[in-house]
Amino acid sequence: MLDLTQLPVVDVHCHPFLNRGPVDAEQFTDLTAFGGGSRQYLEEGGVAVTDAVHAELQRVKRYTLYFRRMLRDLAAFFGCAPDLDTVLAHRNRAVEEDYTSYVRRLYAEAGLTTLVADFGFPLPMLDIEAVRAELPVEVVPIFRIEPLIVDLLAMDLPWAEFRQRYDDTIADALQHKGYKGVKSIIAYRTGLDISPLSRTPDQGYQALDAIRRGLGGGSMKKLRDHLLCRALELCIEYDVPMQIHTGMGDFEVNLVYCRPAYLMELLRFPAYRACRVLLVHTGYPYHGEAAYMANVLPRVYCDVSEGIPFAGHAARRILSEVLEMAPISKVVYGSDGYALPEINYTSAKLGKQALGQVLSDLVTDNMLSEAEAQEAAGLILSGNARELYQLD
Amino acid sequence: MLDLTQLPVVDVHCHPFLNRGPVDAEQFTDLTAFGGGSRQYLEEGGVAVTDAVHAELQRVKRYTLYFRRMLRDLAAFFGCAPDLDTVLAHRNRAVEEDYTSYVRRLYAEAGLTTLVADFGFPLPMLDIEAVRAELPVEVVPIFRIEPLIVDLLAMDLPWAEFRQRYDDTIADALQHKGYKGVKSIIAYRTGLDISPLSRTPDQGYQALDAIRRGLGGGSMKKLRDHLLCRALELCIEYDVPMQIHTGMGDFEVNLVYCRPAYLMELLRFPAYRACRVLLVHTGYPYHGEAAYMANVLPRVYCDVSEGIPFAGHAARRILSEVLEMAPISKVVYGSDGYALPEINYTSAKLGKQALGQVLSDLVTDNMLSEAEAQEAAGLILSGNARELYQLD
Amino acid sequence: MLDLTQLPVVDVHCHPFLNRGPVDAEQFTDLTAFGGGSRQYLEEGGVAVTDAVHAELQRVKRYTLYFRRMLRDLAAFFGCAPDLDTVLAHRNRAVEEDYTSYVRRLYAEAGLTTLVADFGFPLPMLDIEAVRAELPVEVVPIFRIEPLIVDLLAMDLPWAEFRQRYDDTIADALQHKGYKGVKSIIAYRTGLDISPLSRTPDQGYQALDAIRRGLGGGSMKKLRDHLLCRALELCIEYDVPMQIHTGMGDFEVNLVYCRPAYLMELLRFPAYRACRVLLVHTGYPYHGEAAYMANVLPRVYCDVSEGIPFAGHAARRILSEVLEMAPISKVVYGSDGYALPEINYTSAKLGKQALGQVLSDLVTDNMLSEAEAQEAAGLILSGNARELYQLD
Repeated sequence: MLDLTQLPVVDVHCHPFLNRGPVDAEQFTDLTAFGGGSRQYLEEGGVAVTDAVHAELQRVKRYTLYFRRMLRDLAAFFGCAPDLDTVLAHRNRAVEEDYTSYVRRLYAEAGLTTLVADFGFPLPMLDIEAVRAELPVEVVPIFRIEPLIVDLLAMDLPWAEFRQRYDDTIADALQHKGYKGVKSIIAYRTGLDISPLSRTPDQGYQALDAIRRGLGGGSMKKLRDHLLCRALELCIEYDVPMQIHTGMGDFEVNLVYCRPAYLMELLRFPAYRACRVLLVHTGYPYHGEAAYMANVLPRVYCDVSEGIPFAGHAARRILSEVLEMAPISKVVYGSDGYALPEINYTSAKLGKQALGQVLSDLVTDNMLSEAEAQEAAGLILSGNARELYQLD
Repeated sequence: MLDLTQLPVVDVHCHPFLNRGPVDAEQFTDLTAFGGGSRQYLEEGGVAVTDAVHAELQRVKRYTLYFRRMLRDLAAFFGCAPDLDTVLAHRNRAVEEDYTSYVRRLYAEAGLTTLVADFGFPLPMLDIEAVRAELPVEVVPIFRIEPLIVDLLAMDLPWAEFRQRYDDTIADALQHKGYKGVKSIIAYRTGLDISPLSRTPDQGYQALDAIRRGLGGGSMKKLRDHLLCRALELCIEYDVPMQIHTGMGDFEVNLVYCRPAYLMELLRFPAYRACRVLLVHTGYPYHGEAAYMANVLPRVYCDVSEGIPFAGHAARRILSEVLEMAPISKVVYGSDGYALPEINYTSAKLGKQALGQVLSDLVTDNMLSEAEAQEAAGLILSGNARELYQLD
Repeated sequence: MLDLTQLPVVDVHCHPFLNRGPVDAEQFTDLTAFGGGSRQYLEEGGVAVTDAVHAELQRVKRYTLYFRRMLRDLAAFFGCAPDLDTVLAHRNRAVEEDYTSYVRRLYAEAGLTTLVADFGFPLPMLDIEAVRAELPVEVVPIFRIEPLIVDLLAMDLPWAEFRQRYDDTIADALQHKGYKGVKSIIAYRTGLDISPLSRTPDQGYQALDAIRRGLGGGSMKKLRDHLLCRALELCIEYDVPMQIHTGMGDFEVNLVYCRPAYLMELLRFPAYRACRVLLVHTGYPYHGEAAYMANVLPRVYCDVSEGIPFAGHAARRILSEVLEMAPISKVVYGSDGYALPEINYTSAKLGKQALGQVLSDLVTDNMLSEAEAQEAAGLILSGNARELYQLD
């Protein structure tokens, strides 16, 4: 088995967070669980959230393989038993002693050197320097377009100004604010079936007018589609990658229109071919589509975050299946971690284990030499991301 | 490897059957094969079903991995060679001696204690007590809405009465007839892309009127969609689970609109959040979607029937992939067995073997402790289903 | 592990090619890479193809698992190091000495005896006898309908004559030109969501008229859909199989409408039930749909080409997952090889290795006996294809 424990890791997709201090078992569960619903979710559904229902919600979150694995990783880190209370006692003690030095030890053990972080979640946006001050690793900010769209809509601007401010804000973020890329979560809004013809500014003009006049008729989709096309053009202009969410997300994702396949028509359109596009989460569970697109479209990449770690043991399957078609030079590691530093940690541990298993299997099956497998590990864990984001 | 042979099994999804007595090789093949077509299917296609074509049809059915495995399981049970004629000779002798005692031995060997059975297939409906009299295990009946819809349409009722009878019949089944849940196979009819707005009774009113007047215009879909929403509401009211067919079925399934993803919009709509919904067959081969929904929607469950056993060795892959996202407490074992008791038997044997392999792999890969794996086995094979159907 | 090295192989899906003589590293890469884009692709996207960009394009193509594996297979064949330059030196020497005898040795080592070749690619069509003269194996030509459609559209014929020539050309190919089957790549054009009602000649009449008059309105789709239905009818009449492309292809495929599921409605329509239809590429990465259709539709088959070899180590997963539902008697081996003889070679090597692993696993997991596994290997590698194409 390939041993990747010493390799550095760039986490190409995650979210910024600040020290929350010690957390109790329920807070830890709620902050780290990927799904499982919430009190509010059920209350909106007319359910009286009794103690029994409350316990039901906690149980759903604690019965995922991902959650069990995180406890095991942290228990090994602290040298304690892998039950939630014991792990948290150690964790909180370390946080109370010194948060940053705890995170330093944690990330050093996993080899995490860099977080490429989408500052569009959580909202209101965290201050980049405040996050950097606490996190003992390189933090590379990414600019999300959706909060900007919300802000601009609230301003009631004429189209010419709306458009100019949209461009200027993104350009300013990339040129002067240190952002190294752009991101969209349009798959949570109006879906990925975006016509390349949305590119004309007149589509934005018409859509904004229709929104103002309350005409409906898909006007919000037309506006979002236009602005996504414009973001791709700006990424080409400023030579940065574009991240587009594909595949699973929280319960509000547009599950029918989140498949990477819907992006095919857009991304192969000549006007966007120059753009380097990361298919975020590699579209899991539709990662076969993302891998195929990374094969036939020369500047499309697969970011394996979210499936790793939130789909637990899927880490191995995702990496193996993505590598069926995606070139080794197009696969980048990420976690989609948020809220607490432990998610990025367990993700890196799990990702390294899974990648080691996958590459060892490929050597055994006569697909790669050992040297090629070692090179692949370095590229996927950090090399591809460093090149893509021009990090050195 | 975890040994699950002694664990009890609740088969959460199957169909009732009565003793058919001895069967010949062709009958056995036709009764147990999942697909493979029929004489009638090809005749309707203008094919003269010669002896050669007849042999072709039998061959297709006997060349699935599932069929081969069933023969091997039965051969092991009887202690004979795994060829069809030998196995059937033993089987028919046992059935002729005493059907119920044969089934008792068969199910005891697999640990099968409970069949949660959809009495909506076969039609005309079998008598619950007649089935119970023959089957030496707990039989839990489920009420399917589609035969009721057919009956009500045939009665030519005004909407107010149609609606009242629909509600009353379901309520009566749940309150007085011993049914423990409701089921829909709308994926075989008009598909799973059901708008939550179908909930208004006026949609049913308009649709029934349009059907009566022969207006088409998707009126049957509108009626079915409304009645499905109403069934969800009744399940909430009477606190029973709703089963919704997703994924593969026989050749008449609506293959484009059977994907679990199409249910997302409906099931997260506040009005239905309280309902416990089983995604029947966990949507195989789209089980990744079902597992994801069981993760983010707190009352959605994955029933792994039909893929187990009809997709043969897929049993292991299905269980492993469903557990990537579905909490351990949301996965329930089932078979979709029908017609002959041997399907439920081989399914339980195969399901236990596959689950044992998957859980052992999870322990090896540091995802679960042995104790957690043992608990998971008990939950998936029976515990989750007993809680869901309040069986004790 | 089952050893299949001695078994003969029919490659049920590939394309004809002529001797191109020696090739340099870049030519070899461009000719054998499945995807990876081209100079022209990026230039059309406004990218100045500098040396760095040129190197980027080559790198993408050389970093797939498939490409690495091909080098390893050829290195083993030549007994040399698995780097591109060394392998090519040996390869070019062998080609210069005697192309046909090189291919003979290559194919003999893999057991390749037969190529079922779609002569519709490359265009202009290669001469069947010229191809046969160079290739030391059985060559079975397949007739692709799309070039014929292009030719007929260029002729500006009235519908009655268009229709007659379409029928006559296909009939002539099957009756007098030695073609053994028909193929469509409609998934690259207007997609697989073909209504069975497209069968009426009036749809063709109306569509051709609308195309002539420049009316748009989906007229090209209506024409193509009608002509595909007609091709199915001709296949029934002349008792030959129909190949329909499903799943992945080059970057121009209609990725949303290439899923096999879209064909379900068409293929189960009574008028087409008699036709033997191969779902080409078994719809990878949607092969679960193809396998399901091969289970429930008695005359639908899975051709596992393209995934093998272009998805590298996926060969094992594809074969395993297709066999979950597709009867053993419905799965046929193929490569989709083109341009150079080495693709068919590495595909056969990889396919045999993967099939051996899958069948061994099935024996280990008590799904098949060793004898059944051996029979399955023979059927999938050659027996099913020989029967389907009536090759003996």
